[in-house]
Amino acid sequence: MGSSWKRLGKYLWETQILGSVQSTLYWDQNTSMPFRGASWRGEQLSLLARQLHSRQSSIEYGNLIEDARAEFENQRQKGNLVPAQVEEHGRNLYLLEQDFRRQKSLDSELVSDLASAKSEGYSLWQQARKKSDFSIFVPALQKLIQLRQEEARQLSEPRSCWETLAQPFEPDITLVRIKELFNPLRKRLPELLSEVRELNERRPLNGWDLSENDQQNLCNELLNEWGREDGITSIARSPHPFSTTLGPCDFRLTTRIVKGQPFSCFLATAHEWGHSLYEQGLPCQSHHWFGWPLGKATSMSVHESQSLFWENRVARSMAFSERWWKRFANVGAPINCSEELWRLMNPLIPGLTRVEADELSYGLHILIRTDLEIALLEQGLEVEALPSEWNLRYKELIGITPGNDKEGCLQDVHWSEGLFGYFPSYLLGHLISAQLAESMNKDFEDHSNASSTIDGLIENGKESTLLDWLRNNVHCHGRQLNAEQLVQKVTEKRLSSEPFLKYLENKVKNLMALP
Amino acid sequence: MGSSWKRLGKYLWETQILGSVQSTLYWDQNTSMPFRGASWRGEQLSLLARQLHSRQSSIEYGNLIEDARAEFENQRQKGNLVPAQVEEHGRNLYLLEQDFRRQKSLDSELVSDLASAKSEGYSLWQQARKKSDFSIFVPALQKLIQLRQEEARQLSEPRSCWETLAQPFEPDITLVRIKELFNPLRKRLPELLSEVRELNERRPLNGWDLSENDQQNLCNELLNEWGREDGITSIARSPHPFSTTLGPCDFRLTTRIVKGQPFSCFLATAHEWGHSLYEQGLPCQSHHWFGWPLGKATSMSVHESQSLFWENRVARSMAFSERWWKRFANVGAPINCSEELWRLMNPLIPGLTRVEADELSYGLHILIRTDLEIALLEQGLEVEALPSEWNLRYKELIGITPGNDKEGCLQDVHWSEGLFGYFPSYLLGHLISAQLAESMNKDFEDHSNASSTIDGLIENGKESTLLDWLRNNVHCHGRQLNAEQLVQKVTEKRLSSEPFLKYLENKVKNLMALP
Repeated sequence: MGSSWKRLGKYLWETQILGSVQSTLYWDQNTSMPFRGASWRGEQLSLLARQLHSRQSSIEYGNLIEDARAEFENQRQKGNLVPAQVEEHGRNLYLLEQDFRRQKSLDSELVSDLASAKSEGYSLWQQARKKSDFSIFVPALQKLIQLRQEEARQLSEPRSCWETLAQPFEPDITLVRIKELFNPLRKRLPELLSEVRELNERRPLNGWDLSENDQQNLCNELLNEWGREDGITSIARSPHPFSTTLGPCDFRLTTRIVKGQPFSCFLATAHEWGHSLYEQGLPCQSHHWFGWPLGKATSMSVHESQSLFWENRVARSMAFSERWWKRFANVGAPINCSEELWRLMNPLIPGLTRVEADELSYGLHILIRTDLEIALLEQGLEVEALPSEWNLRYKELIGITPGNDKEGCLQDVHWSEGLFGYFPSYLLGHLISAQLAESMNKDFEDHSNASSTIDGLIENGKESTLLDWLRNNVHCHGRQLNAEQLVQKVTEKRLSSEPFLKYLENKVKNLMALP
Repeated sequence: MGSSWKRLGKYLWETQILGSVQSTLYWDQNTSMPFRGASWRGEQLSLLARQLHSRQSSIEYGNLIEDARAEFENQRQKGNLVPAQVEEHGRNLYLLEQDFRRQKSLDSELVSDLASAKSEGYSLWQQARKKSDFSIFVPALQKLIQLRQEEARQLSEPRSCWETLAQPFEPDITLVRIKELFNPLRKRLPELLSEVRELNERRPLNGWDLSENDQQNLCNELLNEWGREDGITSIARSPHPFSTTLGPCDFRLTTRIVKGQPFSCFLATAHEWGHSLYEQGLPCQSHHWFGWPLGKATSMSVHESQSLFWENRVARSMAFSERWWKRFANVGAPINCSEELWRLMNPLIPGLTRVEADELSYGLHILIRTDLEIALLEQGLEVEALPSEWNLRYKELIGITPGNDKEGCLQDVHWSEGLFGYFPSYLLGHLISAQLAESMNKDFEDHSNASSTIDGLIENGKESTLLDWLRNNVHCHGRQLNAEQLVQKVTEKRLSSEPFLKYLENKVKNLMALP
C-alpha cells in the first residue's frame, strides 16, 4: 500500500500505544495500587481518556482516513490489489470510518455530560447498594437513560435506540435476532431447571476447602497444560478476576481465592485464560494489523464464547474430571472417582446472583436484564418500577424472589455506568461456544480417529489440538467477520440456541444418571 | 497568587500526571511485566518521554513561566506577598526557569543522538559484561563521553563539564567541594579497613538462611513499626529493590529474597522504606506544591541520606539488635544474644562489588568511580585505559584486584547510560546521614531525658520519634534548600566527613570490643 496508508497506520499505532498505557493503569489499579491511590489514578486515566478522545475525533485523523480511502480506491481501480487485500483493507477502512463517524456525531457537551453522569451513577449505585436502597440510585439512572437516548438520537443510525447502544459490544445486533435467539431459552431453561430440582436434594459435599497454595499449584498446572508461555504471560491476584492485553507480547490475567469455594479460582483461571487465548490468537502479533481494526476482537459475545468454551466445555466436562480427579484428590479434595469431581464441578442450583449462576440458570439472569433494559430504553418502563419488575421476573423465570434490592436489581454494575446492550453478549457467548464446539467435534470426527473427539482429546491432555482449531477457525479473523458471520463461516449454519440447549440437555441427562 | 500563577500550576499538574504515568509503567515493568513485553513497553515509554519533553520545552510553557514571573514581581513590588511567599514562590520560579533554560539550550539533534547513544550504550554494556570483554563497550562509552561533553558545552553554565553534568543529581555541587569532603575519607577509610582485618578472621556464622515466609513476616513487622499506612503503600518483588512514588497517596516499594543472605531482604526493605519516607514527607501531599519544584526531593544525596539513616543508623545499630534479636532467633537464626545479631548485621569485609559493600568500604568504591569519571570527562583519560586504571585503584585503596572486567569496571550500569556525576551522591548520602543523626541526637539529649537518644528510642521501638524529627527538619523543605543548605540549616554546621568518620570509628571500636 502507499504512503497515505502508512501514515494512517502510524497514527493508529500511536493510538494503540496510548490505549495500552490506559490498560496498564487499570491493571495496576486492580492488582497493586494501594486504595488511597485511587483519586490520583483517576487524574491519570482522565488525562489519557482526553488524549485518546481527541486523537480519535481530530480533523487530522479524519483526513488520514479520507486520504487512505482515496488511495485505496485508486489502487483498486488500477487493479494493483489482490482480492484478499481488497477485502481486508476495505474492511479496515469501513470499520475506521464507522468508528470515526460515531466519535464525530456526538456533540461535546453530551460527551462531557455522559462522563459526569457515569461517574455520578457509579458512585450513587455503590451507596444505594450498600444501603440496599434503590431510591438513592433512581435519579442517576433516569439521567443516564435520558442521556444515552440522546446519544442514540445524535448517532442517528438506522437502528432502534437499544440496538444503537448495543453496537460497540455486538456489531450489527438487532432486537429481532435477540428475540429469535433467546425465545427458545425462555421456554426450555425453566423446564430443565425443574428437571434438575431432584439433583439438588442429593447436594454435593460442602464445608471443605483447598489450601491457597494447592489451588495456586493446580491453576499453574492447568495453564501449563493449556499452552501458557511464561515470556508473554503474567498472573496476579485481584478482587475480581479479569484478563487484559497490554502489548503484542504482554498478556495478563488475574484470579482470586474464594474461601469455602475450592473450584472458584480454578474455574476463573480457565475462564480468563480462554479470553486471553482469543486475544493471543488475534491477527495482530508481529503482523501488520496491529493497531488496525482487524487486529481486534470482533465482539463481546465471541470473546465470551472463548472463555466459556475453556471453562464450561473443557474444564467442567466429564472427560476433564477423568484426567484431573486424582490431582484434586491428592491435595485433599473429598472425592474418590471422576464422577464425584464432575458432580462437584457442576452444581445446577438456581440462585439470585448472576455472577454465581451455573450454566443452566445463567441464561435466565440475562433474559431478565435484556428484557428490562429494552423496556427502560424503548418501552417507557419507569425507573421507579424497576425493582418490582425485576422481582416479578425472577419469581416467574427462576422461581425465587430477592429479599432486597441489593441482591436484586442493584447487584450488577453495568447500568450504573450507563452500559446498556452489554448483557446479552454473555448469553450469546454460551450459544456461540456451543455451536462452535459442535462443529469442532464434527471436524475431528470427520478427519481423524474416534479418540479425537473433543472429549477424547481432553481426556488425553491434548487440549493443544482444541486450541489449534480455535486459532485457525475463530481467533485469526479479528474484526474481519462479525459474530454471526463468523459462526456462519465456521459452522456453515446460522447461529441458533439449539446446540446450547442440546449441550445442556445432555449434561442434565448425564448428571441425573449418576448413582 | 493571581491567574498567571494558577495557569502555570495547572500546566505543572498535568506534567506531573504524565510523569507519574511513566513511573507506573516502570513499576509494572519491574514487578509484573512478562519479559517479552519489554519491546512494547519501550514504545510506550518513548511516546511518554516525547510528550514530556515537548511539554517541558514548549513555547507555551516558556510563556507561562514568564507570565508568572511578571505577575510575581508585580505583586512583590506592590507589597502583596508575605515574606514566606516571596521566598517560596521565588524559589519555585528560579528552579522552573533554570530547568526550562536547560531544556531549551540543547539542540534537538543532540537530544536525539544522546537517546540513541544511551540505548546503544546500555545494550553493548550488557553484552560486554556478559562476555567480560571491555573492548565491546569501548566505542559506545567514547561516544557517550563525547556527546555529554557537547551537552555541557551547549548548557554553557559557569561550571566545569563534570560539574555541569552532576547538577541534576546534586544541585550546586563543585569539584572543589567534592575534594574537600572526600579527601579525609581517602586517607582514613583504608586505615580503618586494615584495623578490622582481624575481625574477619573470626568470621560470622555462614551457611544458614531464613525461609521466604519468615523473611517476609519480619519485613512486614519492620514496616508496621516504622509507620507504614496500608492505604497508601504497596509492596512487590523485583530483581533489584527500589522505591517509587506514583501519586500523592501512592507509595510503592519492592524487595527481593536472596538465597543464603538472610538479612538482604530485611535491610533492603529498611533502605527502600527510608527513601519512601522522604517522599512521603515532602511538601506535596494535599498541598499546593504538588507538581511544583518545592514538592520534590532536593538531591540524590539527601534522598540517599534518608535511606541510609534507616538502614545503617537504625537497623544496623546495636540498639536495634537488642530489640529484634529474639524475633530473629524465634524463626531459626543461629543467635543467642543481641551481640550476635549485631555482628551478623555488620560484616566489615571488603569486596570487589559496590552494591554488596559494607559501610566501611562502600566509600572507597565511590571514590574510585568519582576520580575516574572526572578523569574521563575532564582530564583526558582514554577509555581504553579504564580497566587498568580501575584495577590499579582497587589494589591501592581496597587492597584487592578484580579477576576480570565483569567484576571490575563493567559492574555498574550508570556510565552505560551516560550517567556521570551520579556516583558521589551515594557517598554524600552517608556523610549527610551521619551529620543529621548527630544533630538529631543532640536535639533529643537537650530537650528530654536520657532514654531519648536515638539508640534509646530504637531500643524502645519509638522510631516514630525519629521519623517526626526527620519530617519536621528534613523532609518538609523539598527543593527550597539544596543539600548543603539543608545540612547547614539543620545542623548549624557546614557539611563535613567528620561525623561519618566518627560514626564508623565508633562502630569499629565496638565491634572489636565484642568477645
